[in-house]
Amino acid sequence: MHSKELLSVIAIHGGAGTMSRASIDAGQDVAYHAALQAILLAGQALLARGGSALDAVSLAVDMFEDCPLFNAGHGAVFTHDATHELDAAIMDGATLRAGAVACVSRVRRPLRAARAVMERSEHVLLVGAGAEAFAQACGLELVAPDYFSTAARREQLQRALTLDATLLDHDASALVFATPASSRPPLDEERKFGTVGAVALDAHGNLAAATSTGGMTNKRVGRVGDSPLIGAGTYADNRTAAISCTGTGEMFIRAVAAYDICARMAYAGLSLDAAAQEVVMKVLPAIGGRGGLIAVDARGNLSLPFNTEGMYRGHARVGETPQTAIFA
Amino acid sequence: MHSKELLSVIAIHGGAGTMSRASIDAGQDVAYHAALQAILLAGQALLARGGSALDAVSLAVDMFEDCPLFNAGHGAVFTHDATHELDAAIMDGATLRAGAVACVSRVRRPLRAARAVMERSEHVLLVGAGAEAFAQACGLELVAPDYFSTAARREQLQRALTLDATLLDHDASALVFATPASSRPPLDEERKFGTVGAVALDAHGNLAAATSTGGMTNKRVGRVGDSPLIGAGTYADNRTAAISCTGTGEMFIRAVAAYDICARMAYAGLSLDAAAQEVVMKVLPAIGGRGGLIAVDARGNLSLPFNTEGMYRGHARVGETPQTAIFA
Repeated sequence: MHSKELLSVIAIHGGAGTMSRASIDAGQDVAYHAALQAILLAGQALLARGGSALDAVSLAVDMFEDCPLFNAGHGAVFTHDATHELDAAIMDGATLRAGAVACVSRVRRPLRAARAVMERSEHVLLVGAGAEAFAQACGLELVAPDYFSTAARREQLQRALTLDATLLDHDASALVFATPASSRPPLDEERKFGTVGAVALDAHGNLAAATSTGGMTNKRVGRVGDSPLIGAGTYADNRTAAISCTGTGEMFIRAVAAYDICARMAYAGLSLDAAAQEVVMKVLPAIGGRGGLIAVDARGNLSLPFNTEGMYRGHARVGETPQTAIFA
Repeated sequence: MHSKELLSVIAIHGGAGTMSRASIDAGQDVAYHAALQAILLAGQALLARGGSALDAVSLAVDMFEDCPLFNAGHGAVFTHDATHELDAAIMDGATLRAGAVACVSRVRRPLRAARAVMERSEHVLLVGAGAEAFAQACGLELVAPDYFSTAARREQLQRALTLDATLLDHDASALVFATPASSRPPLDEERKFGTVGAVALDAHGNLAAATSTGGMTNKRVGRVGDSPLIGAGTYADNRTAAISCTGTGEMFIRAVAAYDICARMAYAGLSLDAAAQEVVMKVLPAIGGRGGLIAVDARGNLSLPFNTEGMYRGHARVGETPQTAIFA
């Protein structure tokens, strides 16, 4: 803790949810731990080179978006209409600048579009075709909408359509699984809040947060959750903390969950962990909110609370071995 | 202050901005005061009958949306592409339920769509065509997009396009005015942050807030400001306050302006007015944020601060004469 570099840290999440019935089978979690490790190592190396927190969270979310295991970018879930609508946000704790996109279906890397909104427009949030036109004008890669599709996600939609309910609210025990138990992921995909995110503190003392998601399987077209909303699913302020959330988005919006942690630190004098625990374990459950979040403060303290059975997560301090975990 | 009914109060705003050069001409403000008065009288009567804060703010914003003087509903400004994109949000302080729509162009009364999202969906925010389909399914009135257009707004867009800049950021003194000074509104339309909103406390002790806007003249298609974002432009919590904002939306988003007032009351023990003044006069100006807001707390205290030259505003307590004002 004496060298500034030692303080640099990145934390990531790949969604929170309920333990899969297959999760007791050994080996199901290997791919998830490996993906989290790879992302942490890349972010850690960037920070070790003196890179910025903004670049570290951008890189981490880029990698999540490219990985089909997680519900962001390639591997995003399907809407009710069998389309994809992706949301992303980024915030710079040093300047309070922020950028976000929502309901984009042709931008390969939604987080890069969010960063372009922050850095190359006077706006914070662009949605739909307007956001895509802006991304294109910025030279970002557009793809055919089926770029995001995977067979596993399509199967999830089919199961959800059969039940005619959004996966967020029904009882997964009623689901008929087509996928053999031996190949199921550790967190139950039918009851997982699929979001990815990263927070970081760099050697310059700056904080940043980024979040990206494909939303909920079978969601109503046009629905926007907390991920791209500054203050709800994403927030960063050097004076307090950087936060990225995952869970029942509507409840995180109503609780202004990410910013509420910063407010409790700034106005009530709470520590990062006390503030994060209060929001995740009390405020959100009081209105039915389930999920978790990752948070880092300006001293490099971390808090990764969740009120579900598990959350894909990890952190890496510069100079230390990255740590990954799924369950409590 | 002894009767519960006496506490009932509604406050409204029709946008904040800079004094028009024509505003010294007597009579220019008559139409604005009259419109504000009519809205306050209707809201006051509803509250006097024991109506809810939710119904009072809904009625007030309905009336604003129908009035072409204000930038919401009929009379909304044009985007860069000469279209209209309307945003609205509502929040119930008793339950923390909230609903919002953004980028709708065919819903006659966007605030009613926001309320339908709150009451008839499991979501908080719906955008674009998905929001319109939901509104239609709820039986709300859809209109041709040109329903919202007025000659005055089209003229504003033409002036803005000539300058090739969003009106938010340019120097209005460079504008060539086609409208004769004698018919200009009291606040300079070229430098006004066009939003309408209402907050109320009802006889049951419940708070509510609602906001609606047509955005900024010449804005990029797909841009969403603070108005429909819960915590940024709109928030209500019976434990603290109900707030509706108007101003440079991006700065209100970055500051999480509406919720920040509630947080300062809850965690720092500030009064409503102290919290609102802090946000409007210090936090927002520090990041270049201009505008104002209206706020009411659970005891019926009001605060209507703005850091611009004026804000169309007013309030009415049950049993008292409504008060309207434009300048400081």
